[in-house]
Amino acid sequence: MTGSAEQRNNMQDMDIAGYMQGVGRAAREAAARLRAVATADKNAALESIATRIAQRREQISAANREDMQAARANGLDSALLDRLELTPARIDDMLTGLAQVAALGDPVGAISDLAVRPSGIQVGRMRVPLGVIGIIYESRPNVTVDAAALCLKAGNAAILRGGSEALHSNLALADCIAAGLADAGLPEATIQVVATRDRAAVAALLAMDEYLDVIVPRGGRGLIERVIADSRVPVIKHLDGVCHVYIDAHADPAMAEAIAVNAKTQRYGTCNTMETLLVDSTLAEELLPVLAARFAEKGVELRGCERTCALVPTARAASEADWSTEYLAPVLSVRCVDGLEAAMAHIARYGSGHTDAIVTSHLGNARRFLREVDSSSVMVNASTRFADGFEYGLGAEIGISTDRLHVRGPVGLEGLTTLKYVVLGDGQVR
Amino acid sequence: MTGSAEQRNNMQDMDIAGYMQGVGRAAREAAARLRAVATADKNAALESIATRIAQRREQISAANREDMQAARANGLDSALLDRLELTPARIDDMLTGLAQVAALGDPVGAISDLAVRPSGIQVGRMRVPLGVIGIIYESRPNVTVDAAALCLKAGNAAILRGGSEALHSNLALADCIAAGLADAGLPEATIQVVATRDRAAVAALLAMDEYLDVIVPRGGRGLIERVIADSRVPVIKHLDGVCHVYIDAHADPAMAEAIAVNAKTQRYGTCNTMETLLVDSTLAEELLPVLAARFAEKGVELRGCERTCALVPTARAASEADWSTEYLAPVLSVRCVDGLEAAMAHIARYGSGHTDAIVTSHLGNARRFLREVDSSSVMVNASTRFADGFEYGLGAEIGISTDRLHVRGPVGLEGLTTLKYVVLGDGQVR
Repeated sequence: MTGSAEQRNNMQDMDIAGYMQGVGRAAREAAARLRAVATADKNAALESIATRIAQRREQISAANREDMQAARANGLDSALLDRLELTPARIDDMLTGLAQVAALGDPVGAISDLAVRPSGIQVGRMRVPLGVIGIIYESRPNVTVDAAALCLKAGNAAILRGGSEALHSNLALADCIAAGLADAGLPEATIQVVATRDRAAVAALLAMDEYLDVIVPRGGRGLIERVIADSRVPVIKHLDGVCHVYIDAHADPAMAEAIAVNAKTQRYGTCNTMETLLVDSTLAEELLPVLAARFAEKGVELRGCERTCALVPTARAASEADWSTEYLAPVLSVRCVDGLEAAMAHIARYGSGHTDAIVTSHLGNARRFLREVDSSSVMVNASTRFADGFEYGLGAEIGISTDRLHVRGPVGLEGLTTLKYVVLGDGQVR
Repeated sequence: MTGSAEQRNNMQDMDIAGYMQGVGRAAREAAARLRAVATADKNAALESIATRIAQRREQISAANREDMQAARANGLDSALLDRLELTPARIDDMLTGLAQVAALGDPVGAISDLAVRPSGIQVGRMRVPLGVIGIIYESRPNVTVDAAALCLKAGNAAILRGGSEALHSNLALADCIAAGLADAGLPEATIQVVATRDRAAVAALLAMDEYLDVIVPRGGRGLIERVIADSRVPVIKHLDGVCHVYIDAHADPAMAEAIAVNAKTQRYGTCNTMETLLVDSTLAEELLPVLAARFAEKGVELRGCERTCALVPTARAASEADWSTEYLAPVLSVRCVDGLEAAMAHIARYGSGHTDAIVTSHLGNARRFLREVDSSSVMVNASTRFADGFEYGLGAEIGISTDRLHVRGPVGLEGLTTLKYVVLGDGQVR
């Protein structure tokens, strides 16, 4: 948190660029201090933040009601209102999340691969914090606490810019975070919530490459594309999840059916939900009518290629655009393909590099799919719905990266750190 | 190599943006094919490239003479002419480099940390190529072959844009590379040398984020700053090397002397050369006169703080700018500091995050220095000159990264790859 309540109210009068410079400088100073902080102190801060939130549930809910009221008055839609609301259950989830992150192992300081070189020096790599992380997100105020917890545990300072409609909620949470940090003797600037709705603050954040090491945008495609286009700071981003399941000629039909139904219908709105089903043509006649019946039960609309439509009369014809669409809805595109090569070619052309799975009993095909499909998660005989930081054992995640540099797939504590070289000698010279 | 000799000559008439789009598209297609290429085929290509270079030494030298002649006619300075020249020894070095890279282990395809999760799925990470790498470099034509070898071995396609003064040399080498790739049945577009001097080609490269995964600029600060400012593609960069040696109060004086002299004088023009010596004030009176004599022998000019100048009459007073200057020359700034904290504060303020060393026998001080100094390499009791891919056992390096994201310090094959998640199941669903 930055500035008193009075200062915040005067924010419109402030020079936003100057304010953001101050935020950036304070974050950089906090990050320098955090490198030397013990794990126990970081955990104590996480626990204190939870205590403070528990103590101030009433104030937090009141602030959230204020945001909700304004949002309703501004005519925001019900999906957005739902994301904005801090129900008692969501506040409980934040507390659970803080305890979970406190329980995670501290990645910072671990030294790996320490090997002796011919010169006699020992060379290894130490995991260290990234530094200062900027997070730009939309309406969900619980992100404020979740992101703060992960950044802090990994030893980073963070600058959080939430949705303007959630500002009261975020500032109430920021007060708890600041108090929790102070309780544990950590710099309050470790976690700063940008205390203005002014959009100039986002522009300033994206330009502060002297203070920020990385920016993580969390939200819809529009937000992410704006961030990529304008940022001078490196970005870790999550774009579309156009996920595929390919049912290989050597698939076990029952397993294929179970995985396909689960990957599509367990949840519709998640990025790791299957959006396109590829069925090997040798199995299409046997499998597609069965699958169509299962999807019909669940109310999933099918959009098929010509061969699919011939086998499934209820399917309507898919358009070219369907193959690259992330529906996030009970809609599925279905294509018959002639073998592994054709399946991989379809994924390469229309996929988004998020998560793709093959169902097969053929070892060679499994190995080729794993190696050649260029996605952040590639799976054999498992539902795409497993592409998730918790399922992968990361303990928590700040998002899923569809980038290639630095970190790919679910981003947990390790993704918020980096490696530096350490060299130990006894006086060696060259 | 892209285009025939005739096409190259007509390059001025071509639409540069269109040409670069073609280069980008071809690189992306080559990268897709390279994911499936066996290690043996990549090694065969590296060996064939060496054979082709050996066969065409005369043509390569002739092309280089043409560049040298033009460079002299254009009045280029002697340092630049030296970097441009392909002597027989430098051609031999390229051949040795190719053989060394062929002998390195292939990082691609290795799966690590494969662990069973409570759900029953096995989750691990596979090392995979980054994709398409753009390299923008200055006059040294040997970079063409060194960079090509590393990118190829790590399974990447590369677009190489060398200095315009080296174009004939680079195109002669590109012909050998293309022939070597063809010999091994790999796509010729795996390595493409941009066949035009037009600066618009660089602008086009920096804008092609649909085709390029990363850009590595190699050269002076001016080049790197231009690339950072203009690139839409992520950049892995090397900025200044303002390296420090801190002689702690608990240092062995003989070891401190040996390391300080080596770190400064073994080579002056390298980025891992010490530029500032920090001496604990408790040792200054004993050590500084001895060190000053050693540096005087080597012709190193000293620029000192007030206390240093009092102890070393030949030292001139350092200016504020000296503390953050990368001399790359027989000049050294020297400061007396009161303890470890002051030394680390100096490094944090004036250093460039490249390589910093402490000389100490005190375990606690060594541990604090390793943990708290925020540089790509931190060292205890070893010369900063060890910060190098070969010394660290990477086998080769494409440069040293002073960035924090993705890769820090010397960048070898691993830095040119990334990790994706692999999930193995037996039909698991959520």
